Amino acid sequence: MAGTSRKDKLDLVIQKIRAFPDFPSKGILFRDVCPILKDPKALTAVIDLFEEHVRQTYPEVELIVGIDARGFLFGPLLAQRLGIGVALIRKKGKLPGPTVSVTYSLEYGEAEAEMQVDAVEPGQKVLLIDDLLATGGTLLAACELLKKRQAQVLGCLVLVQLTDLNGAQRIQPVSVFSLAEY
Amino acid sequence: MAGTSRKDKLDLVIQKIRAFPDFPSKGILFRDVCPILKDPKALTAVIDLFEEHVRQTYPEVELIVGIDARGFLFGPLLAQRLGIGVALIRKKGKLPGPTVSVTYSLEYGEAEAEMQVDAVEPGQKVLLIDDLLATGGTLLAACELLKKRQAQVLGCLVLVQLTDLNGAQRIQPVSVFSLAEY
Repeated sequence: MAGTSRKDKLDLVIQKIRAFPDFPSKGILFRDVCPILKDPKALTAVIDLFEEHVRQTYPEVELIVGIDARGFLFGPLLAQRLGIGVALIRKKGKLPGPTVSVTYSLEYGEAEAEMQVDAVEPGQKVLLIDDLLATGGTLLAACELLKKRQAQVLGCLVLVQLTDLNGAQRIQPVSVFSLAEY
Repeated sequence: MAGTSRKDKLDLVIQKIRAFPDFPSKGILFRDVCPILKDPKALTAVIDLFEEHVRQTYPEVELIVGIDARGFLFGPLLAQRLGIGVALIRKKGKLPGPTVSVTYSLEYGEAEAEMQVDAVEPGQKVLLIDDLLATGGTLLAACELLKKRQAQVLGCLVLVQLTDLNGAQRIQPVSVFSLAEY
């Protein structure tokens, strides 16, 4: 999308995010990124915006870590743009071989996050990616997993940040970059 | 990866697939594609090989449909190469708004697959993508979901096919393209 301004790209992305009330449970307004995926230009814009931010802010990044499952949609795209690899953090029981895991509480319920022990190298500089930051439970667990393996978390990238839930404060000192805030 | 032969790309991909016995349950040899993701050249090779096959065999494709969760790792990459969108088929309860769903049996257990009703248009020509074809339960359920919404399934793309489990026969007449067979 050469020649398209940053603002045009952001507008395109934001206009594709839709909201569903009371999903997955009463009182939660769910932000759905599926319309971005259906529009190849909007998806390109997301990755353009992430790539631009990473090249400016974290040129030293060595690995992208995608969070199960919607982080998987964006992590490999960004990693390929940057010419680096991507590792996975998944719900417990999905990854074979030696793993590390961490239990955490969610906006709705509790979960356990897991990572293969050889997913990252000690000292490796990584960026986390997910679709959405709510209370920050998942990203905090991801940071803990990466710390257990001595990786260096440079920051987190999300499409959507729900600012009222203070997730960004919870995962400090790791910083969050988001394309849309509600 | 211009100048790299098809055989070199396939060799690179296949050498990165590793096997873990007795995962997720006794007697199952799990094929793990995580090392492909960690190597940007291997991941590029996967998408090169898929893209080449799709351009030759399904030039009319209009949408890629990725299967939760490992299909999400490859679907957006292929869709971006082809300049088309990507839709999601997920485990039950993950997608907001009006959905269609189908229950199916897995190699290990039972599951329910779900898709947003506006994920595909009637008559739309789609290709399914996942990391692995085992008994074909998941891909068969995905084909049923797409049929419910009158989409036309051109074929399925997987990195790994476990030929002993006859998944390809189960989803006939939809055809399967795989990069590695065991």
